[in-house]
Formats: sequence, C-alpha cells, structure tokens
Amino acid sequence: MAERLSRRQMLAIGGAGAAGLAAAGVAGAMLRGAADEPPTELNDPSAAVPFYGTRQAGIITPAQDRLHFVAFDVVTTKREELIRLLQAWTEAAARMTAGRDAGPVGAVAGIPEAPPDDTGEAIGLPPAQLTLTIGFGASLFRDAEGRDRFGLADRVPEALAPLPRFPNDAIEPAISHGDICVQACANDPQVAVHAIRNLARIGFGVVSVRWSQLGYGRTSSTSTEQQTARNLMGFKDGTANLKAEQTAELDRHLWVGSGDGPSWMDGGSYLVTRKIRMMIETWDRTSLVEQETIIGRTKGEGAVFGQVKEFDEPDFTIRHGDGELVVPEDSHIRLAHRDFNGGARMLRRGYNFVDGSDGLGRLNAGLFFISYQRNAHRQFVPVQRQLATKDVLNEYIRHVSSGLFACPGGVRDATDHWGRALFA
Amino acid sequence: MAERLSRRQMLAIGGAGAAGLAAAGVAGAMLRGAADEPPTELNDPSAAVPFYGTRQAGIITPAQDRLHFVAFDVVTTKREELIRLLQAWTEAAARMTAGRDAGPVGAVAGIPEAPPDDTGEAIGLPPAQLTLTIGFGASLFRDAEGRDRFGLADRVPEALAPLPRFPNDAIEPAISHGDICVQACANDPQVAVHAIRNLARIGFGVVSVRWSQLGYGRTSSTSTEQQTARNLMGFKDGTANLKAEQTAELDRHLWVGSGDGPSWMDGGSYLVTRKIRMMIETWDRTSLVEQETIIGRTKGEGAVFGQVKEFDEPDFTIRHGDGELVVPEDSHIRLAHRDFNGGARMLRRGYNFVDGSDGLGRLNAGLFFISYQRNAHRQFVPVQRQLATKDVLNEYIRHVSSGLFACPGGVRDATDHWGRALFA
Repeated sequence: MAERLSRRQMLAIGGAGAAGLAAAGVAGAMLRGAADEPPTELNDPSAAVPFYGTRQAGIITPAQDRLHFVAFDVVTTKREELIRLLQAWTEAAARMTAGRDAGPVGAVAGIPEAPPDDTGEAIGLPPAQLTLTIGFGASLFRDAEGRDRFGLADRVPEALAPLPRFPNDAIEPAISHGDICVQACANDPQVAVHAIRNLARIGFGVVSVRWSQLGYGRTSSTSTEQQTARNLMGFKDGTANLKAEQTAELDRHLWVGSGDGPSWMDGGSYLVTRKIRMMIETWDRTSLVEQETIIGRTKGEGAVFGQVKEFDEPDFTIRHGDGELVVPEDSHIRLAHRDFNGGARMLRRGYNFVDGSDGLGRLNAGLFFISYQRNAHRQFVPVQRQLATKDVLNEYIRHVSSGLFACPGGVRDATDHWGRALFA
Repeated sequence: MAERLSRRQMLAIGGAGAAGLAAAGVAGAMLRGAADEPPTELNDPSAAVPFYGTRQAGIITPAQDRLHFVAFDVVTTKREELIRLLQAWTEAAARMTAGRDAGPVGAVAGIPEAPPDDTGEAIGLPPAQLTLTIGFGASLFRDAEGRDRFGLADRVPEALAPLPRFPNDAIEPAISHGDICVQACANDPQVAVHAIRNLARIGFGVVSVRWSQLGYGRTSSTSTEQQTARNLMGFKDGTANLKAEQTAELDRHLWVGSGDGPSWMDGGSYLVTRKIRMMIETWDRTSLVEQETIIGRTKGEGAVFGQVKEFDEPDFTIRHGDGELVVPEDSHIRLAHRDFNGGARMLRRGYNFVDGSDGLGRLNAGLFFISYQRNAHRQFVPVQRQLATKDVLNEYIRHVSSGLFACPGGVRDATDHWGRALFA
C-alpha cells in the first residue's frame, strides 16, 4: 500500500505541479470504499455482495437493478497469458465487488508513464451490490476448424454443445456467442459499466470485446423477497421463476452436480443469453384482451387466468362454460410452464433494454433474456422449442442474439482464481 | 373516471374470463400513483416534479440519474393533427410526470378492440422525478427545400439557425436533428423509457421516432445541492456548471428574454445535444499525468491545477518556476472556461452512455452532451469552436450526433399545452 501511495504521489506531482495537495486528492480518490469489510446486507442496495464462495455470486443473488454483460474473444494463442489474465481479473473482480478500485492490477510502481490502474469513473460510488459472474463458451475449447486452442479440448462439457437453431431465429453472429463472458450486475449502472470497462482494459492484448449489452432494468426476481418487475410487454415477468430460497429445487434444476460432466463444472451452472427484440409498437396497438390472452395472465395483477392473485398457482384444467380452456392452449404461460415441459425449470434474471431506435421509426427495445440451469439442452432448449413453434408472442418478438456459457463454481478465497479448475 | 373504469372492466371481462376479480386488478394497475397531489420534495428521488409552471421542468431541475432522449420526425402534413397530438402529449406528460399512467389518451370508451391507453411497464413505480421537456427543431418550420410545412415559417427564431460544422465533426445525420425532441429524465430508467415509449405510441401516424438515446448515468449536476458526478474519462464533470441557484446568471445565460426573438420563445431556452463517442480504450492506456494535463484538473479531487479543492476558483495566471503555466494553455478546462470565451456559460446536463460495442473490440461509449442556453450561437458555438480546434482531448473523442432545439416556456396549467404559443 505504501508503494501504491508513493507511486500516486509521484504521478500527481508530475501532473498537477502542486505536489502534496493534489497527491492527497488522487490517492484518496483511488480507494473507492474505505471499509475493508463492507456490509453485506442485501436489503441495502449500496452494500457489497461477497465475492468468494463455493458458488459464483450473480446467479441466485437477488437480481440487481442494472446489467452490463460482455462477451470477449480471446486474441492470444498463449495458454499462460490467458491464465495470467484470469488471475489478474479475479483480483480486480474481488476488489471492485468490494467497492474498491480495480488496481493494483497494471500498476508498475515508479513508472510515471504507466496508465492509471483504475479508470476512475466509479470513484466515490458504493459497491452497489456489484456481482461479476464468469462463463466460458464452446469456442474457447476448439476453434471453428475444430483445433484445440488452449489444451482444453478434452475438458469441454457435453452440455456446452451449441444450441440448436429454433424456428424464427434471427441470430446475428456478431452479437452472439464468445469465448468468455462476464455478467456484471449492480444497483448503479456506473458501477456495472466501470467493472466491465476495467476488465476490458486489463485484458488488452489478450482478449477483445466481442459484444456487450446494457440492461437498464431488471425483469425477473430471483428471491421471494423481491417484487416481480415488468418487461416491456408491460407484464410481470418471472412470477414462477426459480428463487434463491428453493434450495432443493436449485440443486435439481440450477446447479451442476458431480457426475453431470467434467469436474471443473461441479457446483457451476449453464448460462443462456438471448437478446429478444420486441416489436413494441405493434404490441402497443394490440388490445388489452388480446395481450392478456396471448400471455395467459392479467396485465394489472399478473394473475393467471382463472386465478385472483399473482402468485396463485395456475390451474390449467379449468374450462369456461362453453368448454374452452380458461388458460388458452397456446398462451405463453401454458407453453412455458414446467407442467408442459417435462418439469423443466430455469432461473431467469433478464433485463429490459433500449438500444436507441432502428432507423425505421421504432425503438430498438426488448428483453435481454438470461437463464441459468443445470443443463440448457434439457431445460432451455425444450421450452424454447415449444415457444418458438407455438407461441403467439412470436408475432411480436425476434431473437437476435444467442449465447451459451459454462459458469463454474465460485472462487473460494484469495488463493483461488477464475478458471483455476478448468486449467488445472 | 367512471367511464374509464367501466371500459376497463369490460376489457378485463373479455380478456380474463374472470370478470370482477381481474377487472379490479387491471383497473387498479392502470393508476400508478393513488395520490392526486404527489409529494414534490426534490430530496426524495421517487417524488414527483411539478409539470406546470412558467418554465419547463427538466432544465434547472436537479439532474436526475437517467435519461431517455428522443427526436421525432413529423410525418403528417396536417397542422391540426400536429396540434392535436401536442395537446394529447401534454395531457399524457402531465399524468406521467405525476406518476400516473399515460391514459386516458387514446381510450375509446366501450370499444374492446382498442389497445390499452398505457403500455403498463411502469405500473407500481413511483414518479421518480420524471420530467419531460419538449423542443422544436428548425426542420419543423421549413423542409429541406425551404417550404413552410405548418404555417410556422415566419416564426422560426434566428437562434435556431443550423449549427456550423466544426473541425473533426463526424456527425451521422440519421442520429441527429429532428422536428421535435423530448428529453425524459428520471431516477428510474423504466420510468423514463415508459414515458418516451408512450409518447411514441400516442403519436403513431403523426410522428415517427427518428433517433433515441439512453443515458445510464448523469454527469453534470445542475444544483449546488448535488455532488458532481464523473464522465467516462473518469473525471468529475460539470463542476463549473451553471446551477439552479444562480438566478441572476440563469437570466443572463440560460433563459430567453423577451426581445431576444419571437415571443413564443420568451422564457424558454435553446437545447444543444451532441453525442460524443469516447475512445475509452485509448484513453485508458494514457498515463495519469497525461490525462490530468489534458483536462487541467486532478482526477481524484477534481481540483483545477494549482488549487486544492474541487470548487476552488481556478487561477489561470499562475506559473511554475520555469515559467510554464500551471493550467496549461491547451488544457480542456482553460479552453472551455468562460474567461476565454467572452463570458459564455451554459447549463449542462449530460449523461454517460454505453451502446454495446462497435464491432472492433471496443465499447461504444461516451457522453451524451446536453446543454441549455439563451443562444447556442453565442454560447455553445464559440466554446465548441475553440475546443474543436485546440483541445488535445479531440484525440480521444468524436462528435457523432448533433441537435439544436428551441424549448419554449412551461405549460402553465391544464388549459395550456405544448406548442400553444408557437401555433397561436
């Protein structure tokens, strides 16, 4: 620490010409949070979420309000460079999730030409429940020609096989897939953006940003303590989501068990991302009757048809006097429900997005869908196949990006790092 | 109100099949805030900002955290249709800024095929200090061929003449200018997006979205009560901004005075938008010394070189022992300061943006610059001309969009509407 301060003091002297005073300002600023042991209460939106643990944070962590998601291409061919980056990233992630600057990564004591070891825009901001969750894509293991890139080819899990193409998919490769992803969630977007930006900075020359996505507002809740939020269809989203409190269900549907595949994924989870553009202008010209019939819930309360309150269990068997099902055969809620998908459940933590307009007079807006599950091919895939073929909602949405990533277990302590088990 | 409820009840009956219960849910949901007189304390980030007044809200209102900015093209050729839209928008804006749904605009009692009069995604959310600020672009008055579009050609203010092209401008017309703009600021992005989306919905067939921009975090503060925030250079931004409390300065620099131009702009202000892409990856590889020298402030405290604290007044005359100016000749702060721009000041309320990545391995990020001033040609233009030619910062930034809009005075009460004085 003494070394860092003296480096900073020197830098400040060089830059400001007003030695001691400016140095005090700079040095103080680079330490975002003074507390070495930040508070961890999750009911405080500015608190820190513990980084170390047997599971990665950011999966069952109560969904924060904002998202910055990034997928990187690895540009180095050197295994050791990649491992060193994962170590440096882990150190920076531990610091930033605790509300500190990303440094000392990249700092070279005594070299005034060195760039700052933190980009600075989060100075003074609290941890804001930042979580950073890493995942590895299939392309990290073998390149497009099938060549083993980093000596990992025998470690690729079967569950990381590419997702199938679904009817009506309009997937743009440039904003899909990737070798490594990092999901940054926080209650302050500046904190989430700062984290991804600093990981990109640290990774310069080793990785390159393939695509990134800002989510401005959460949809699904991941805890029974959270209120259900609304997607841009205007409906509550994630009422029947897997929740952090349902531990037995999580073991069954969310966490990879030992024996499921290669041991480096034990205790991890598979992440599916789908950028779902919504034709909101068309949707907005649809009657309330039709909107509710397509979804199978009321728009206001969010109750399934035939029920009173949001969390009332659906009864898919009841019929109107004329024999018609109360929850229509092709309604979204029925098609997506576990009862019609062999019991498949996922933990969703999606975000609403607006990426400006599309040049055709429409907002470029929708849902950045994120789900975690034990095996996407047994959970996401059958549900999506059913939705893609039968859901009337398809008239109003289009899937434009897709990703599947293997997210291993957590970083256990300061001696552990992202990817350690994978590269062991 | 009775009519609205009965329409909603009927819709709910048709849609949900579970008449009374669902109707209660839907009707309840459409009223976001129960209070007809929402609280207005600005230290409560969820409170309402008064919509009616002699000035438009959203200019000196303490800058909220989030932005959704939209520019519309008017697609109708009928003056009366445009006026009717402005009336409908005003009604919706008054409701939404009070934390209510956008309706009853568009509601047609007793017609179940009618779309909902609010899109629903803000149900249950507080007003979140939403402000909606309207401005009119030069293209509303005359088309590209110089033809008078709506009988307004003799009312175009001289101050609305196009901004000049500046050196290094890389302006993309598709995301620049526009006939009408609306700036939505709020402390919850879902509330800001909801407002713009509903204005676009209401305007269907009369206007079309030309471009829109989300700002995820504010930079400049507009009140002495607010902490200065940071832009993506990592520096504090807006320390020397015009502030709401400086009423004499506001009259001189911000508000259009009677006699400045056509009377419909009395009490208004001219709005300049510039989307400034930052080459943050290049910036991040620049030393702290160089960054601070380019800006002329320390990064941590934000003190001008030679000073101790952020708000210490700069002294541009002091020199080092070797005769070099302490605040360098070509530093950003000196070039932009009123002392070197004939006293010109602006009220800035910009926002950081990240629009994913640029396909070249870089984040597409920067500052959505917003400034309000009495006359952009005497305030923004000379400052920007000086910056565009001399500022070293230009190596790290690029202006990619530009807009100039005339924002008239406020809507005085429920009998008044946006554009009334302009069309009177």
